[in-house]
Amino acid sequence: MADLDIKAFVFDVFGTVVDWRGSIGREGAAFTKRLGGRVKGLDGVDWTAFAVAWRRKYQPAMQKVRDGERPFTILDVLHRENLLETLSEFGVEGLSDAEIDDLNHVWRRLSPWPDSVEGLTMLKSKYIIATQSNGNIALMVNMAKFGGLPWDVILGAEVVGHYKPDPRAYQNACAALDLRPDQVVMSAAHNGDLQAAARQGLRTAFVPRPNEHGPGQTTDLAAEDDYTFVADNFVDLARQVGV
Amino acid sequence: MADLDIKAFVFDVFGTVVDWRGSIGREGAAFTKRLGGRVKGLDGVDWTAFAVAWRRKYQPAMQKVRDGERPFTILDVLHRENLLETLSEFGVEGLSDAEIDDLNHVWRRLSPWPDSVEGLTMLKSKYIIATQSNGNIALMVNMAKFGGLPWDVILGAEVVGHYKPDPRAYQNACAALDLRPDQVVMSAAHNGDLQAAARQGLRTAFVPRPNEHGPGQTTDLAAEDDYTFVADNFVDLARQVGV
Repeated sequence: MADLDIKAFVFDVFGTVVDWRGSIGREGAAFTKRLGGRVKGLDGVDWTAFAVAWRRKYQPAMQKVRDGERPFTILDVLHRENLLETLSEFGVEGLSDAEIDDLNHVWRRLSPWPDSVEGLTMLKSKYIIATQSNGNIALMVNMAKFGGLPWDVILGAEVVGHYKPDPRAYQNACAALDLRPDQVVMSAAHNGDLQAAARQGLRTAFVPRPNEHGPGQTTDLAAEDDYTFVADNFVDLARQVGV
Repeated sequence: MADLDIKAFVFDVFGTVVDWRGSIGREGAAFTKRLGGRVKGLDGVDWTAFAVAWRRKYQPAMQKVRDGERPFTILDVLHRENLLETLSEFGVEGLSDAEIDDLNHVWRRLSPWPDSVEGLTMLKSKYIIATQSNGNIALMVNMAKFGGLPWDVILGAEVVGHYKPDPRAYQNACAALDLRPDQVVMSAAHNGDLQAAARQGLRTAFVPRPNEHGPGQTTDLAAEDDYTFVADNFVDLARQVGV
């Protein structure tokens, strides 16, 4: 720490700050309870499997943007397209547009991991804390209101205009904050995200989320590179930087 | 209130939330005290007059962007260009680049009006609160850290890509929040800003700041149109919407 000049922590959100798999599992079960009798196929849905199938379409959808096959499109829209495909795969038919929107907005109602709010609040007392997520502004701000995430600023994907791990996503986030990359710590539970940020000169913090993908998770269980910080959780990270 | 479906309050910041004239007057005096002996012309500066002269160049600088004479340029940069001109007009010579940057960043250290933090915090308990300022993200986030402004999201001018009162500034802010204009309340001490927002379908809240321009202020002393809300200050505004 002694020779570092850190001003901001920026955070991956899905999986790192919030539990998408558990949240969608719970929200989906409530959705079935509310509409199950009326909508074909809904009663039989395994919502944890549904969450995983939906999330599996996330990277390919963004890849089309990264490859220039389609213009920059916000994640709320990509999520909705992927949702329609996933509903079809699971044999669910007959939801109204409003019901589909409501289900799509489950991403705005993901629950934080137990240490997230406390750790972020601690870090906020001394540093700028910001999202560095592929989620769009409306998604991120509603999620923050839902879960009490105390962001100083939401660097929604529209702000940076590119999807991670595109180098411009990290570069543009630092530029928006008027900080040098070495004054910014990218914080994530995903080695690939941190390695991409490090290549742009950002500092890095690995915080493992060994249950993001449920029991039997095999990826991102440990730091696979020489990061600036490796912490057990966000509270531990805050303590490591003296708050 | 009964028939309104308000989800967010967006705020003009310079003059409405923070006191630029008083803050620059105080910061400038401290600047003179620190550097006066060494820098030509600094001892004689009337910093309140300096603040007014600097601020007078604000609208013309943005107008060149609005008119398409130059590409969108963030306010930190426009402020710095205007500062160099103002320093020259006041006969100040010999500041280093770092000292000029420090003085330019006085806009990141403007003090909130006495009711701002309390009123914003009350509104935040029930609504999304966001900046709808011509200030850029770095300026706004540093000002928020300095003054304790509890924004949910900073819709920095880079997010909307246009300077108020360009209609696209208001339209793009609502779009970023995924809200209809009639779900968003533009809140400002300036009639022109509110009238421009109302033309785009936003709700409006007038909060007078009769000392923004000092004693003898003649403009924006009262609501000049039929706004959704007219409040004495932000705490009054929060009470009017039931928080």
